[in-house]
Amino acid sequence: MTGNGNRNWVLARRPQGDDFESALEFHEHGNVPAAKDGQVLVKALYLSMDAGTRMWMGPREDGYQPPVPVGTPMAGMMIGEVVETRRPDFAVGDRLRTFGHWADYSVADEHSGLFQKLPDDPDVDLTAYLAMGGPNGWTAYVGIADVGKAKPGETVVISAAAGATGSLAGQVARNLGCRVIGLTSREEKARWLTDELGFDAAIDYRHQNLQHELNVLCPDGVDVYFDNVGGDILNTVMGHLAMYARIAVCGLVSQYADDGKRPGPSNFDQILMKRATVTGFFSPDWFDKTEEIERRIMGWHREGRFTCNVELVDGLENTLKAYHRLFDGSNRGKVMVKV
Amino acid sequence: MTGNGNRNWVLARRPQGDDFESALEFHEHGNVPAAKDGQVLVKALYLSMDAGTRMWMGPREDGYQPPVPVGTPMAGMMIGEVVETRRPDFAVGDRLRTFGHWADYSVADEHSGLFQKLPDDPDVDLTAYLAMGGPNGWTAYVGIADVGKAKPGETVVISAAAGATGSLAGQVARNLGCRVIGLTSREEKARWLTDELGFDAAIDYRHQNLQHELNVLCPDGVDVYFDNVGGDILNTVMGHLAMYARIAVCGLVSQYADDGKRPGPSNFDQILMKRATVTGFFSPDWFDKTEEIERRIMGWHREGRFTCNVELVDGLENTLKAYHRLFDGSNRGKVMVKV
Repeated sequence: MTGNGNRNWVLARRPQGDDFESALEFHEHGNVPAAKDGQVLVKALYLSMDAGTRMWMGPREDGYQPPVPVGTPMAGMMIGEVVETRRPDFAVGDRLRTFGHWADYSVADEHSGLFQKLPDDPDVDLTAYLAMGGPNGWTAYVGIADVGKAKPGETVVISAAAGATGSLAGQVARNLGCRVIGLTSREEKARWLTDELGFDAAIDYRHQNLQHELNVLCPDGVDVYFDNVGGDILNTVMGHLAMYARIAVCGLVSQYADDGKRPGPSNFDQILMKRATVTGFFSPDWFDKTEEIERRIMGWHREGRFTCNVELVDGLENTLKAYHRLFDGSNRGKVMVKV
Repeated sequence: MTGNGNRNWVLARRPQGDDFESALEFHEHGNVPAAKDGQVLVKALYLSMDAGTRMWMGPREDGYQPPVPVGTPMAGMMIGEVVETRRPDFAVGDRLRTFGHWADYSVADEHSGLFQKLPDDPDVDLTAYLAMGGPNGWTAYVGIADVGKAKPGETVVISAAAGATGSLAGQVARNLGCRVIGLTSREEKARWLTDELGFDAAIDYRHQNLQHELNVLCPDGVDVYFDNVGGDILNTVMGHLAMYARIAVCGLVSQYADDGKRPGPSNFDQILMKRATVTGFFSPDWFDKTEEIERRIMGWHREGRFTCNVELVDGLENTLKAYHRLFDGSNRGKVMVKV
């Protein structure tokens, strides 16, 4: 069953910027890892492409995950099928969600992170467990409802709004009765947000003046900012906060590739002036709430009020093409590799 | 009663740095303001010296108070005595706390801010209503307990720890069972914090290496940072946060005199990495809790567990000497002018 070897992406060196081709090597004949007692051997079905994993490719020791060691396979979230089991609660053929490798085969157990058997429900598309009803959905919900404490009628701004988490966060806010403005880097993605996903407005910050558009669209200020990017955009939004604003820091993707000194937001003092709150969060910390969140999200989905666009890229060998879509601004919603 | 004119400090121009002498003019023969219906005329007894007022001297429109107009008397918090009343709830001779002018006489009403009649209790030193049991005390309590959510056994770091609010914040944290480390700019003030106020440790950040001392004193990181100063010190502490740390931003005194671009903390990304929360707060927002807070603080005071050092400077004409003490690092505790 595992006789053909284990194709896998090895982090040969730390990447410069988004030159992933020089950093990651595709090994076509790697060894299949051996499952120890308490582990399962998993055949990958879908790999989740997440901007946050860029940080683990770098050398930073102070990120929220340690760096992936050079010379080992790249790590990420996935859905797979058990092909060998050394634990009583998993049978061959079970599907699961877990952290694993960008590879045909990974071993996993409860120390892997997000290790969870998936229900055997033929009506649910497996990809939903990685996106809409999975970590992107939880993150969107936690960031808007729990960290951002968004209330009906408030103005919510979301960066990287056409990304997997951003596009879901906007829909959470809409469903909670907020006015939602998305920030994105292309005009066609801005149109997608308003026309297809129900955002009240969208700003193409590369081609429009963000400061001016925020003035026009948020005359009373921004109550909740769901941030995925940090950097200049965060700084500009900080200059437009409403009193008692909340900033939910989900990601700082503009800074992940930067190994040097990262300048802080020069409008930081607005935290004091507007009595604002900035909170960094990481959705696995809210793991005990995920069942409740998934129930709520899937309820909205059945009512036609919550959707997730999934971009599938076929073939493990095309993983870097898929990964690049997160950084070149081309993706709409969730990007996955179908192994 | 008001026949001798009204001595007052007029903001003649916006100050450069801490050159207050060139900015503020002492007028010895100003007019006594006229109380309108609903107002009282107040004779100043004590003026509160607060670093936050430095911001109102500047031109910034985005601070939490609008700038004092050039050509008008400087504003601040005070305790005074009613000498003329045009409202039924105040009699001549009543003492009150209010925002007013750096002057012999001010008019005041509920729009002045913090306008409150004081109890007629001969046992309580009036200065307590400006410091320990007043706004500095509320701010210390709110910042540590409500914003900082300090829990017993946690490590709390306080900047400008020998100042009025900082010295009280440290005592609040101690009384709540925390380990408290104060940051201050002089060795003798560091000794005062540990020997007289019960801080567990103090760092003289001008003459010691803050980074190194934090490593030694906070090996498990800083759980709560009560910040009065912002700037480089905030940035350094951000590099030492414990997981789920809380930063209560009470003031950013290092930036008040700066009219240009203010660099943000380059360790800002630690908010995400440590899932930390940063909250700006302004204690008047918590006005409905002040009675409860004052009761708790004064209870500690009677038990000998809470004290406030008050530095009184005699004479309205010496106001700038008193004010300078906030910025040259020489004060211990609260500075007031006895008019």
